[in-house]
Amino acid sequence: MAINMQRIKTLIDHLATISSGDSELTRLAFSPEDLTAREYLLDLCRALGLNVRIDEIGNAIIRRDGIENDLPAVAFGSHIDTVVNAGKFDGPLGSIAGLEILLQLCEQRQQTRYPLELILFTCEESSRFNYATLGSKVMCGITNQAALSHLQDKNGVSLAEALAQIGLDFEKVDQAKRAAQAFKCFIELHIEQGPRLENENKTIGVVTGIAAPIRCIVKIHGQADHSGATAMNYRHDALLGGAELALELERAAIRAGHETVATVGQMQAKPGVMNVVPGYCELLVDIRGTDIEARESVFLALQQKIDDVAKQRGLQIDLQLIAKDQPIILDSGMVNAVKHAADTLGYAYEIMPSGAGHDAMHMATFCPTAMIFVPSHQGISHNPLEHTDWQDIEAGVNVLQHVILQQAELK
Amino acid sequence: MAINMQRIKTLIDHLATISSGDSELTRLAFSPEDLTAREYLLDLCRALGLNVRIDEIGNAIIRRDGIENDLPAVAFGSHIDTVVNAGKFDGPLGSIAGLEILLQLCEQRQQTRYPLELILFTCEESSRFNYATLGSKVMCGITNQAALSHLQDKNGVSLAEALAQIGLDFEKVDQAKRAAQAFKCFIELHIEQGPRLENENKTIGVVTGIAAPIRCIVKIHGQADHSGATAMNYRHDALLGGAELALELERAAIRAGHETVATVGQMQAKPGVMNVVPGYCELLVDIRGTDIEARESVFLALQQKIDDVAKQRGLQIDLQLIAKDQPIILDSGMVNAVKHAADTLGYAYEIMPSGAGHDAMHMATFCPTAMIFVPSHQGISHNPLEHTDWQDIEAGVNVLQHVILQQAELK
Repeated sequence: MAINMQRIKTLIDHLATISSGDSELTRLAFSPEDLTAREYLLDLCRALGLNVRIDEIGNAIIRRDGIENDLPAVAFGSHIDTVVNAGKFDGPLGSIAGLEILLQLCEQRQQTRYPLELILFTCEESSRFNYATLGSKVMCGITNQAALSHLQDKNGVSLAEALAQIGLDFEKVDQAKRAAQAFKCFIELHIEQGPRLENENKTIGVVTGIAAPIRCIVKIHGQADHSGATAMNYRHDALLGGAELALELERAAIRAGHETVATVGQMQAKPGVMNVVPGYCELLVDIRGTDIEARESVFLALQQKIDDVAKQRGLQIDLQLIAKDQPIILDSGMVNAVKHAADTLGYAYEIMPSGAGHDAMHMATFCPTAMIFVPSHQGISHNPLEHTDWQDIEAGVNVLQHVILQQAELK
Repeated sequence: MAINMQRIKTLIDHLATISSGDSELTRLAFSPEDLTAREYLLDLCRALGLNVRIDEIGNAIIRRDGIENDLPAVAFGSHIDTVVNAGKFDGPLGSIAGLEILLQLCEQRQQTRYPLELILFTCEESSRFNYATLGSKVMCGITNQAALSHLQDKNGVSLAEALAQIGLDFEKVDQAKRAAQAFKCFIELHIEQGPRLENENKTIGVVTGIAAPIRCIVKIHGQADHSGATAMNYRHDALLGGAELALELERAAIRAGHETVATVGQMQAKPGVMNVVPGYCELLVDIRGTDIEARESVFLALQQKIDDVAKQRGLQIDLQLIAKDQPIILDSGMVNAVKHAADTLGYAYEIMPSGAGHDAMHMATFCPTAMIFVPSHQGISHNPLEHTDWQDIEAGVNVLQHVILQQAELK
């Protein structure tokens, strides 16, 4: 079955103009522009007679009935909210690709045996409420109203207020939870957000699992001393302790293998001036992987190094755990379905984990789930320079369509 | 001649309350609180009929005529500006000690053969303009208006604007340069800011030379990438490059010997968030020593490591030299005068270099110059925990007074 690449381009480019800022793309969850973008897409669905529903947390669910409409749905989708100063592909790609596939079926008057559901998950990005994949977490019952009551954005607007502004009732949020039995499977097409496909010269990423982070803050207390008057052997330099930890994290991640990664995103010293030996230093640490043991080995290496460095340098080092989420291994049947589709369509593919989190990781707790990646130029994402070639977009949509139609049994 | 320790204590403690913050001592150069502190001390001088003058860069010069008033002045002093979150002795000690010695002469109606000058140098700390010993550099002609025109503080306030705010005209700054012939000698009393005197159980440090810093900013350009989606081997992590440089600087300083020290005071990454591999990192580097070759070896080791790290990690690293001052060997006659005073007064002393820079190092290019150190508890300085016992303060003031009166020939 064909796809209309011109329409996909037009929709992606148009969505990129729906922003809170004139010179950049920013479309935070539940904002007026988020609503405008959603309604723009839903109007296209309504025009073709698709069933459109907004659930109690704000997820948009577009359903096309199957021949056997009591069967569980073949679901697919992504999100349309963005980070601040975003690129145009992260989220919209999987959303618009799913929409195109539905529109084609409508226009070509073809029907699948299983019902189809395109889901535009709400608030996937953590940019507004410092809380990622909100819509899918609620839909899958991984969080609930009680656990969300503390959320508020940088302007002090609570989630309840944000929902009220778009006509939703926070008290009813738990009703957005669905039953796992409603789904046969879920498939999400997304840009890679890393450089691997481009570096390996592959078109399709066949995702085997979704890494989850261990996140922590390391607080190093040393002694602030005059940088000229304090001999090297008298120092308790918090920054040098931090430097040792950062390099050990890199070594440990490489040693751990299984594509485990570790990052020190910031390492800020206090007082942080030219002429004082840093008396304090704070590290933001993010360790990710799909292999729990490998990921744990990095965390243990960090703890061990903290002990060593604290002893050797006379520092006091506190490790504060912020988050420790479970990695997800995707269903092998679905992984094979994506591989098979790429093979059939003649696209070179790479078997790989997703380092970033996605709504798919929660759907994977409900039903067999697949993710399809297309290349991100230079791995750049969450940035206006985010770029994927249109021919790679086309390949991704084709693979998505192939898997959906095969799973849904197009008659 | 006696000194009034109670007055010294009161003045030091009072100055510590003149701060921009309620809970800490911060008195940046040219700030309203810097001005308040200065005027507080100058009012005491004016009350006793001392001649008070503010020069064009903001140095305060308090003169007491000598019997032979055409003779060059015996000068002494220090500074009263502080770092952020400072201790109360660094600067105020030498300033208030000098003031006490002048006040005693006034009160006891005694006159010296040579005129006396107490100088409160302005902007000794680099904390505001990232530029140290500004006042003495201008007075000694080591820098000038043209070379200072680029200076601005963290809020973007230029030196010209800061001077204008306290009624000074940046265009006239070069008029603050004085003639070397105006001075017979210069003596500065200061806390050690290192742990050596305390560790060696000595009361007085007889300073033989002043280490001078090489200061530079290292700017590391890598690539900002998604911390989850970017495999370790694809990264160009600017922060890890910085960590390697910081640790190499420590090793190189230890290797160099001759009491050479090297410090990375700050290492700030951008964007500096948990989920992005740092694409940029900036290091503030300070290398000091009295031995030029040893100091140079550390700088060379940094340059070598920059080349290695840039190559290995695919980073672009720029080294921006901010300052490269010459270490100073102090006049042996003045060193002996301090030794003699300590001996006469019965204080145990240590012959030692100053690791920190001081206004005295510029005055030493003008005239025979001495520095007197008193112990810093645990070597702590530039820190609220900075502490010197009052009996050590008293010893230091006594030695300073002894040297001044001997040099100025009290009749």
